[in-house]
Amino acid sequence: MIEELMKMLEEREEEMIKIRRYLHQNPELSFKEEKTAAYIADFYRGKDVDLITNAGNGYGIVVTIEGGKPGKTVALRADFDALPIKEELDVPFKSKEEGIMHACGHDAHTAYLLVLADCLILLKDKIHGTVKIIHQHAEEEPPGGAKSIVEEGFLDDVHAIFGIHVLPIAPAGTVGYHSGYSFNGRAYFKLRVQASGGHGSSPHKANDAIVAGAYFVTAIQTVVSRRVDPFHAGVVTIGSFDGKGSFNVIKDHIEIEGDVRYSNDETKDVMNREIHRIVNGLEELFGVSCELTYEPDYPPLYNDPELTGFVADTLSAAGDKDIIEIKEFPIMAPSDDFAYYLEKVPGCYFYIGCTPKGTEEPYFNHHPKFDIDEGSLLVAAKSVGYVVCNYINMKENKSSH
Amino acid sequence: MIEELMKMLEEREEEMIKIRRYLHQNPELSFKEEKTAAYIADFYRGKDVDLITNAGNGYGIVVTIEGGKPGKTVALRADFDALPIKEELDVPFKSKEEGIMHACGHDAHTAYLLVLADCLILLKDKIHGTVKIIHQHAEEEPPGGAKSIVEEGFLDDVHAIFGIHVLPIAPAGTVGYHSGYSFNGRAYFKLRVQASGGHGSSPHKANDAIVAGAYFVTAIQTVVSRRVDPFHAGVVTIGSFDGKGSFNVIKDHIEIEGDVRYSNDETKDVMNREIHRIVNGLEELFGVSCELTYEPDYPPLYNDPELTGFVADTLSAAGDKDIIEIKEFPIMAPSDDFAYYLEKVPGCYFYIGCTPKGTEEPYFNHHPKFDIDEGSLLVAAKSVGYVVCNYINMKENKSSH
Amino acid sequence: MIEELMKMLEEREEEMIKIRRYLHQNPELSFKEEKTAAYIADFYRGKDVDLITNAGNGYGIVVTIEGGKPGKTVALRADFDALPIKEELDVPFKSKEEGIMHACGHDAHTAYLLVLADCLILLKDKIHGTVKIIHQHAEEEPPGGAKSIVEEGFLDDVHAIFGIHVLPIAPAGTVGYHSGYSFNGRAYFKLRVQASGGHGSSPHKANDAIVAGAYFVTAIQTVVSRRVDPFHAGVVTIGSFDGKGSFNVIKDHIEIEGDVRYSNDETKDVMNREIHRIVNGLEELFGVSCELTYEPDYPPLYNDPELTGFVADTLSAAGDKDIIEIKEFPIMAPSDDFAYYLEKVPGCYFYIGCTPKGTEEPYFNHHPKFDIDEGSLLVAAKSVGYVVCNYINMKENKSSH
Amino acid sequence: MIEELMKMLEEREEEMIKIRRYLHQNPELSFKEEKTAAYIADFYRGKDVDLITNAGNGYGIVVTIEGGKPGKTVALRADFDALPIKEELDVPFKSKEEGIMHACGHDAHTAYLLVLADCLILLKDKIHGTVKIIHQHAEEEPPGGAKSIVEEGFLDDVHAIFGIHVLPIAPAGTVGYHSGYSFNGRAYFKLRVQASGGHGSSPHKANDAIVAGAYFVTAIQTVVSRRVDPFHAGVVTIGSFDGKGSFNVIKDHIEIEGDVRYSNDETKDVMNREIHRIVNGLEELFGVSCELTYEPDYPPLYNDPELTGFVADTLSAAGDKDIIEIKEFPIMAPSDDFAYYLEKVPGCYFYIGCTPKGTEEPYFNHHPKFDIDEGSLLVAAKSVGYVVCNYINMKENKSSH
Repeated sequence: MIEELMKMLEEREEEMIKIRRYLHQNPELSFKEEKTAAYIADFYRGKDVDLITNAGNGYGIVVTIEGGKPGKTVALRADFDALPIKEELDVPFKSKEEGIMHACGHDAHTAYLLVLADCLILLKDKIHGTVKIIHQHAEEEPPGGAKSIVEEGFLDDVHAIFGIHVLPIAPAGTVGYHSGYSFNGRAYFKLRVQASGGHGSSPHKANDAIVAGAYFVTAIQTVVSRRVDPFHAGVVTIGSFDGKGSFNVIKDHIEIEGDVRYSNDETKDVMNREIHRIVNGLEELFGVSCELTYEPDYPPLYNDPELTGFVADTLSAAGDKDIIEIKEFPIMAPSDDFAYYLEKVPGCYFYIGCTPKGTEEPYFNHHPKFDIDEGSLLVAAKSVGYVVCNYINMKENKSSH
Repeated sequence: MIEELMKMLEEREEEMIKIRRYLHQNPELSFKEEKTAAYIADFYRGKDVDLITNAGNGYGIVVTIEGGKPGKTVALRADFDALPIKEELDVPFKSKEEGIMHACGHDAHTAYLLVLADCLILLKDKIHGTVKIIHQHAEEEPPGGAKSIVEEGFLDDVHAIFGIHVLPIAPAGTVGYHSGYSFNGRAYFKLRVQASGGHGSSPHKANDAIVAGAYFVTAIQTVVSRRVDPFHAGVVTIGSFDGKGSFNVIKDHIEIEGDVRYSNDETKDVMNREIHRIVNGLEELFGVSCELTYEPDYPPLYNDPELTGFVADTLSAAGDKDIIEIKEFPIMAPSDDFAYYLEKVPGCYFYIGCTPKGTEEPYFNHHPKFDIDEGSLLVAAKSVGYVVCNYINMKENKSSH
Repeated sequence: MIEELMKMLEEREEEMIKIRRYLHQNPELSFKEEKTAAYIADFYRGKDVDLITNAGNGYGIVVTIEGGKPGKTVALRADFDALPIKEELDVPFKSKEEGIMHACGHDAHTAYLLVLADCLILLKDKIHGTVKIIHQHAEEEPPGGAKSIVEEGFLDDVHAIFGIHVLPIAPAGTVGYHSGYSFNGRAYFKLRVQASGGHGSSPHKANDAIVAGAYFVTAIQTVVSRRVDPFHAGVVTIGSFDGKGSFNVIKDHIEIEGDVRYSNDETKDVMNREIHRIVNGLEELFGVSCELTYEPDYPPLYNDPELTGFVADTLSAAGDKDIIEIKEFPIMAPSDDFAYYLEKVPGCYFYIGCTPKGTEEPYFNHHPKFDIDEGSLLVAAKSVGYVVCNYINMKENKSSH
Repeated sequence: MIEELMKMLEEREEEMIKIRRYLHQNPELSFKEEKTAAYIADFYRGKDVDLITNAGNGYGIVVTIEGGKPGKTVALRADFDALPIKEELDVPFKSKEEGIMHACGHDAHTAYLLVLADCLILLKDKIHGTVKIIHQHAEEEPPGGAKSIVEEGFLDDVHAIFGIHVLPIAPAGTVGYHSGYSFNGRAYFKLRVQASGGHGSSPHKANDAIVAGAYFVTAIQTVVSRRVDPFHAGVVTIGSFDGKGSFNVIKDHIEIEGDVRYSNDETKDVMNREIHRIVNGLEELFGVSCELTYEPDYPPLYNDPELTGFVADTLSAAGDKDIIEIKEFPIMAPSDDFAYYLEKVPGCYFYIGCTPKGTEEPYFNHHPKFDIDEGSLLVAAKSVGYVVCNYINMKENKSSH
């Protein structure tokens, strides 16, 4: 079945590119992907699958391909939302939507997966078990779409999940992987420090919110410097300290907003606990009253080491002419809500190199000039194809439950 | 001459009140006192004095009364600008100017001094030396009017200067004094900290201006806590910390504005030097670039101890039925540009109690409900009258130069 | 009676000097003044007074002189302990006790008071009311002797108390006074911060006491900079930060010791409250456990304004040839346990100038070369003599109770 | 040749254990390993090798085994110093030296390498190229022995170096590896802050060293929290803050000692630069004078990725019954001067599991109860044996230069 699938994918490379360009030209923002979702759903209409639309908290689509033979259930995910970025790339299929751009490559993710899914549908009789295709909305904007899809039970019967992200840090033909924690988790916080105002010449009759806020900023540094394991990543950035006022009036309140990052669950817990502790301490220290909103966002993304090894081994063993190099990539600073799936079931989220040909210093994802080598579409389709086929054909997976 | 003067003042008390009410009804903001100045100048027209208008950097008026006998030159000052405050007092002579109010008592200062000056003009043949009447504009708004009047040389031939301020912390009939440093001096500063921005998840690629600013706020506390003599007053208030931004973007700059207070010249110098030092240290400490604007404003006001003793003794000895109590007042937190005159010549700036009758907790100067007992006008006129007469009649002052 | 007293004092000036030199040569440390107390007690033996020894928590002596006429009770106090200072002065009556010196002038205080007391005893028939002579031990070392004397009830029947301190900031012949708060109060504190140790390379497995201690030091600056009225004096000095350890081992605890000063009771309360608050905040902020010992010591010394005015007026009116100048002195940074008496009854603690003749920059009290002009002894005796006589002769004081 | 070697090693397992026990019983501290070095040198006497003693800055020994065939030069290193730890283990071969213990396993390192070296000497005719055996002194105490051995040129003709460390985090039979940066680098620093002392009540007349030191501690937190790449490890621990003094005397100086850790060269540079910057900033900020001693110590240890892959592949392919598992180990917090060799030539420092049998929570290296499963000796010898043989037999290595 693998050879057959690979041959089909090679023959349909042009179709992937065409779909990707159509999506690129018609980007939609997170939670507003109405037309994109309709396009995807249309693709599946009339095919022998179970199609669910409006999945999760938005326009999610879940397609279930029942194989002809007993086996486990494997899920594949591609996200399809775009970003509020004004495209600066000059291509024939440039975004038609002013100020909206597929600058993260979700167009590519969706394009390869549609074609791969169709091929799998055509080969379904040979499939052991079930393949669930998750076309996910709203990856770019917390709370994201993934969490709601998990909460609605779509992963309850799934045994493993796989997904890919295109990254221009390697050329098309390179597949990257990272075992264990692979993307940072993130939390947002807002702190309002309420003190009491007064005249600048009489500090003893007031309680200075700016002073309290400044000591908070210096104290919060110790969360990263002394509380987080030095071999784990932790960041607290206070991006906003809103204490604008009049030079000779003591401020009665200030507002701080911050961004917290952590590379694993342990660090997530440490930072959550320590930031709350420092806020509590601040209240006592300066006699102020604090209101803290602390919102953990996408969790750290954890690739199952066994399945990551399985992906690397599978692709190495494939010896496919289009998959030239398989190598370890470093842990990534950004966050991705694929992490929610991996909290539910084991899986692997890996990388497809896509540096545009002839480019030495490619623009990274989210840049207005972000671009991809479209050769990466076939690499993505084939890589995920190998992984799915090998997974469902593994002896221990064939007879499920 | 003193008895004659006191009798004249008592007879003209109503006039003082009338003038004060007229001024109260027609307040003008600092540097915009065109009509008030015209009113004052008109008062002197046709009288046997030297009248200079538009003195200093605004509508200042200097009236010189040449006495009939040789002696020293003594100056008297009253300020005449009002405040951008919406009056909340319900009186028949309420301000006609929306949002402008004589909430500091400068109307009273001007009213008593006009009548006292006129009496002195009538008695000029008996005066040893010269009396200079300074009707000063723009006390409320730095750089103020006083400094420019000094700079134009109006005090070059003056031997002593006196002035009063009405204060509702004692009833009409009480005269207060404070020897030595009596009002705080003040400086304004603005600090721009320029660092470099970046993404919240990658602090090592940026230089965080909010962190640098927060450490500045904590370090600046030591100026007051460790550098200023504990028996001197010093205050640094950071009234504004403008670091508003996006929670996950590292701020590239922040702007701080502050207010500095000091009770004497030594402390003024210490604070100036130490704040500059800390800003310099901050640049090195965090590799940021700082732009500091530091503007000393009104200096600490220093009452000559000898002349202050002279004022207290003169009024005690007067035994006037309207001047019931003479007592020491504490040092004042606010600032007054009378301080500039006292940097040039010795003198005394003292206080006239004016608590409205029947009021237990009077509103302080600058409050929208600030009010005075108009009985304080006569007390002011008499007190300054005694001081001037005694000063020019002192043996050592009679033959000047 | 006053003239008689003054004449007696003038005649016994040599005796005062002799006594002072004897005491100077035989100094004893606080709470160890056995021989000094015996010497004083011997002085009174056989005289018609009530003599109490071992008063308070040490060698205090209280001598009661019952006057022949009815009236109020006035107390006079002189302290008699010396300091652990090695004398560097080369005088014939240099200290015989190695490392102990009357470097604060308590020898002079005691000498003048013994002679004055004896004169009053001789004149007792003419005295309205009662004079209590308090020879106080242990002023130099907290908890001091004064507090215990008050606690034992010796001031229960006293209406006013007076005392003096020799100060070399003015020549003999000058008497200084300060109304209201005149000496700083003081507190001592010790803070133990208990965290948990660990290896320097693994901060996340420990809790760093040095970091917590350092943030405490920076936070405590705000007590003085933001909590204390800028016109009041407040100081927090951390004189000891004991965190010595090994460079690569995280300290599990540190110990801080500090000195707190305040110029009045309000500031005393503010500082006590705020230092406790910050310690509580620290526990939460860093998850450490703090043990704070906070011991207020001598309170701020408050001279009753009325009695201070009475002292100044009395001495001005005396027109005594030996009392050349009476003037205001500034508030003093040190502390004196005379403050405890003034918490109990009104009174005045004033100053006797004693700059050694021919000295431009005299050594201050507590310096190993501290010296006095012995002419100040007679000035002290006369000044206190005038004050006592005038006090007991005041009409309203004559018929007591 | 490999089979032959393995057989020899298996037969000489007892000898390894005997040597290890002898060394364990006779430990010597770093730079004082006179008898140990003599023991090692004696082992080689009479064998056909080049033997150099007293290599480097101590008792280092370098043994050169010239192979019979042309090829590259590969170095093997074992360290042989012990620690100032009092052994708490109860074994028949317990340390005879009070307070000195082989608590890091260097006895095992030396034992296996002696036997392996002897086998290679016996097989030298079959060796392509040269094997250098480095018995290194003084690993435990900076500056260590490795740096001096490199400086004396012993690695100038070496193409690759290998070494192992026993670690009780895995059982005997497990071999661990880590590619790239694998052990932290380290620096020591001492900072003396010189200010000026004074009386606690008069901070304005002094310059408080404790306050300056405390702000240093808070500022230094930002090096780790804001300057170091969150995915790299960095630690600054201030293990000592020596500011002990008297509670009411302002400290004139303090002394801080600290430990700096970094996982790679980039972080090493960042921390060095930033700590110096903050010290410079402190001088300006508080007007103090700082003396900083900053001594980088062992560098981060970098395992060549290619040779690390070679080690892992070689051992996987070996299929040896005693080498049960080969797996990745995490990066290590401690430091090892093997890092200096790897700065000079590529190589790999890998791990030999040694958890004592039946132990669930083994004591880690440097613990007084540290122990090993002696089965790990044969695993070490075989692993390094396979690596050497495979390295010299690689086609490209056979004809060197």
